[in-house]
Amino acid sequence: MLEKTTRMNYLYDFYQALLTPKQQSYMSLYYLDDYSLGEIAEEYKVSRQAVYDNIKRTEAMLEEYEEKLLLFEKFQERKRLIARMKECLSGESDHQTLTEFVAAIEKLD
Amino acid sequence: MLEKTTRMNYLYDFYQALLTPKQQSYMSLYYLDDYSLGEIAEEYKVSRQAVYDNIKRTEAMLEEYEEKLLLFEKFQERKRLIARMKECLSGESDHQTLTEFVAAIEKLD
Repeated sequence: MLEKTTRMNYLYDFYQALLTPKQQSYMSLYYLDDYSLGEIAEEYKVSRQAVYDNIKRTEAMLEEYEEKLLLFEKFQERKRLIARMKECLSGESDHQTLTEFVAAIEKLD
Repeated sequence: MLEKTTRMNYLYDFYQALLTPKQQSYMSLYYLDDYSLGEIAEEYKVSRQAVYDNIKRTEAMLEEYEEKLLLFEKFQERKRLIARMKECLSGESDHQTLTEFVAAIEKLD
């Protein structure tokens, strides 16, 4: 059975633009809308195995993209840093501007 | 004639991991080492036209990746924000920690 992980949700989020429309549909139904393999198979009039194989291949592709581009890893690192910056900033009132910049950086990812 | 742009240098930097070894070689010689098309052709024992076509196709691929993932656009935006954060921080001495975080965020890209 495929494992539905938070990691895969993130990888899909970062790299979905690089997938085919069909890969996007299967992944979106499976990971975002929580469809079962059987439900997707029924929806697309294909075998459950075909859906499983497609999703497995797509997952491997997403992991390859992450290995090459590290978007998720960098995102996590930035998130961690930004959280600490916010901790530093909290309690001080004259840093409104800085706080806004930090929020803006966060919004980019 | 191909135009050697700063933009293409950046796009190559962001997406080179997604290219084939041959594409990487041609692009690296042309954009980073400033080889001419003729020099690359000689190096690889192929026609100048073949090198030109390969580089043109690779450039188009890089633009497509950027259209889909926007890594360069986001990078520029973060750089702009980080520069302004640094302006805010300069002149104050009690923000060593924050300054280090900002530097760390910058290093991520």
